[in-house]
Amino acid sequence: MRKLLFGATFFLTSFAFGQVKDEQMLKDIYTMALTNSKSYAWLDDLSNKIGHRLSGSVGAEKGVIYTKQQLETLGLDRVYLQEVMVPKWVRGEKETAYIIDKKNKISVPICALGGSVATPKEGITAEIIEVHSLKELETLGEAKIKGKIVFYNRPMEPENIDTFLSYGRCGDQRRSGAHEAAKFGAVGTIVRSLNLRLDDFPHTGATSYGDLPKEKYIPTAAISTNGAELLSQKLKENPKLTFYFKQSCQQLEDVLSYNVIGEIKGTVHPDKIMVVSGHLDSWDLADGSHDDGAGCVQSMAVLEIFKKLNYQPKNTLRVVLYMNEENGGRGGKQYEAESKRNKENHIFAMESDAGGFTPRGFSLECDEPNFTKVRSWASLFEPYLIHLFVKGHTGSDIHPLTSTKIVKAGLRPDSQRYFDYHHAANDTFEAINKRELELGAATMASLLYLFDQYGID
Amino acid sequence: MRKLLFGATFFLTSFAFGQVKDEQMLKDIYTMALTNSKSYAWLDDLSNKIGHRLSGSVGAEKGVIYTKQQLETLGLDRVYLQEVMVPKWVRGEKETAYIIDKKNKISVPICALGGSVATPKEGITAEIIEVHSLKELETLGEAKIKGKIVFYNRPMEPENIDTFLSYGRCGDQRRSGAHEAAKFGAVGTIVRSLNLRLDDFPHTGATSYGDLPKEKYIPTAAISTNGAELLSQKLKENPKLTFYFKQSCQQLEDVLSYNVIGEIKGTVHPDKIMVVSGHLDSWDLADGSHDDGAGCVQSMAVLEIFKKLNYQPKNTLRVVLYMNEENGGRGGKQYEAESKRNKENHIFAMESDAGGFTPRGFSLECDEPNFTKVRSWASLFEPYLIHLFVKGHTGSDIHPLTSTKIVKAGLRPDSQRYFDYHHAANDTFEAINKRELELGAATMASLLYLFDQYGID
Repeated sequence: MRKLLFGATFFLTSFAFGQVKDEQMLKDIYTMALTNSKSYAWLDDLSNKIGHRLSGSVGAEKGVIYTKQQLETLGLDRVYLQEVMVPKWVRGEKETAYIIDKKNKISVPICALGGSVATPKEGITAEIIEVHSLKELETLGEAKIKGKIVFYNRPMEPENIDTFLSYGRCGDQRRSGAHEAAKFGAVGTIVRSLNLRLDDFPHTGATSYGDLPKEKYIPTAAISTNGAELLSQKLKENPKLTFYFKQSCQQLEDVLSYNVIGEIKGTVHPDKIMVVSGHLDSWDLADGSHDDGAGCVQSMAVLEIFKKLNYQPKNTLRVVLYMNEENGGRGGKQYEAESKRNKENHIFAMESDAGGFTPRGFSLECDEPNFTKVRSWASLFEPYLIHLFVKGHTGSDIHPLTSTKIVKAGLRPDSQRYFDYHHAANDTFEAINKRELELGAATMASLLYLFDQYGID
Repeated sequence: MRKLLFGATFFLTSFAFGQVKDEQMLKDIYTMALTNSKSYAWLDDLSNKIGHRLSGSVGAEKGVIYTKQQLETLGLDRVYLQEVMVPKWVRGEKETAYIIDKKNKISVPICALGGSVATPKEGITAEIIEVHSLKELETLGEAKIKGKIVFYNRPMEPENIDTFLSYGRCGDQRRSGAHEAAKFGAVGTIVRSLNLRLDDFPHTGATSYGDLPKEKYIPTAAISTNGAELLSQKLKENPKLTFYFKQSCQQLEDVLSYNVIGEIKGTVHPDKIMVVSGHLDSWDLADGSHDDGAGCVQSMAVLEIFKKLNYQPKNTLRVVLYMNEENGGRGGKQYEAESKRNKENHIFAMESDAGGFTPRGFSLECDEPNFTKVRSWASLFEPYLIHLFVKGHTGSDIHPLTSTKIVKAGLRPDSQRYFDYHHAANDTFEAINKRELELGAATMASLLYLFDQYGID
């Protein structure tokens, strides 16, 4: 009986000790992030000194060099580049577009969707027809679509609390709209920007022509939400109005680029790898401070914080800044291919690619025991107002990663403002709040710490 | 046994029915707020058509008329004004300030603190001494302070997650700094802006001379955080440098103003009153969209939402837009005095005065049974990412309100960005996100609904 009691006491004491130790570590992590991290200064450089980092651009190249250099200042065990061939798409001249209503020409803000072909040099003028879904094309049929521009105008649903849900439900218009409309003989498509706010920014993003033969590709562009509202209104008044747009974008040959990688070797299980990541490429309309400069500097800050706290991880911690998430996902695929080739064992991978806003928690891809484990840590996160632990999509770049057993996590920041900036010209450093960015880094470091300490089940 | 089972089943069914009914009502409230509320348009008018609403100003008067008119469109049972005499302080000409370092004059951004006296017409030039607390004045003593300008430079602590905690710990410098320094013969005070961010905006706010005789009042101003950093740096290089500032603000006679009130009569307990509120006055450097235009339009939207949902409250629901929270709190005191005079029974009062950012939950002033009750509703709020239910300060305007038994609640939005804008020239409509504003209104309406349904304990 005595022995048993002693055992129980020992267990409780060590449990309490673990709890106290973890509470203190999280406090240290958050304090370090909020008082002594370089994340915000790094983002300032990436955004304001380098600018946009579309795959294959000079900015992307500079971003690779800069982040590698910065990682080299942190005293990591290894910093290196991983080669990856990426697509190179260029926007060319600024696009122009008009609603042509009898003799009136009304200018509206558009931008070519990434991957789109150009219009002929003189632009395209055609009747325009409004639809609200890809399915509606079938109902209308070739008779009503052929020779016209298709205008996709299904807005993001305002009533969902998670704005990514609304994004997901509208994304097909941008991703597949041109591909589908071309099948019915459309000459171009104009897509309502994936933005919940009414404003004048057109939002770009990747489009795909799927299996369509090249000669059937039609140009496609996004129109600002205000522009979409106006166009829809004008079409109600005059269903026969025409639309003009001109863009000169091009898909060039693939070019060599890099994933940027840094790591701290594990002291107990150096062969078990835990990844923290963001993607270094951005769209070309702005510097991509939220998408995904934030995720990059937060991931770098996770290792910076651990070094500054002199934390010796049990497992190997690796920061990965992926190239080409936006228009190809080549970085993520290459990383996985290299990992397989090197027979690496990844037990954990996390990505921050939902903006630099106040963190609310994590989405997780894992089995039940690990999900239960994460939820058991909820009280540790409570002082930092981290409360959201749900299953769901974690990150596009870590998606390809497979291992015998792996837990994946996606940082979930507050999503209300994200689509105000996403893929648009206003996704700039000014839209970032330093503290929110730092809290995200601390939240990521905290989950990484806990999995490093307690392993995956 | 049969009877008992029937009873239990009935209880469980009605419990489940209540749960389902409440879930549906919250869903309806949030959907209405996000799709069909006027809150954002109201704030646009208040901010962009009317502008700042400092007590006694033309803007405040216009704000009273505008919000009364808008409430009258909602089909409430009663809309009225409540007279209140308010202080009238005017800033006068734009302030100027220089660091004078030998022959160099370096301009720095300052603004007079609300309630401050003017400098002499030619301004004040004096040696400046940096301190970090009111206590430090005692250590230094009159010998080192007399004839000088005291520069309060204790920054807000970055490591607290709740920025209001950091604000609370620095506020004495602004509120009592001049009062205390005057006792030691200082000729003026310059206070580091209560802002966690380094930028060029000076942040105003109320100062008080306490029981100091009028002839001892000294002028006091806030300096931007960048200005404070620069001044501190320059003082390290040259402890003998001087500082110049000039301001022409004045305290005028009190003037008549109003609280704006609208109500829906209760169908079961018309004598039990539940208040939802914000304050209509703002500081004068900007239109006060976050402080507290947001709280006003959210409170108005709560009643708007109930009317649109055709909700018949059990208790009387009252929206109150208080005047003069910023520099006197007269509206709140007047409301309480009138309530006492009319022998009104308030069972619940809520205020939104912490910005229009994404709501996270509520702070509560109530006894344990009611606190437990609120926490029992947590799962109803979970789909809306509302997770914070804590005890603490609720609102300055509802603070004076007493009743036999009353529950008070303060909306707690995300606090990370609040002090970037608080009392500064950038607290404008552009800093507001429509969805975040609407989510706040829905969150307030939801708590009001639940207390209306289930009463207070």
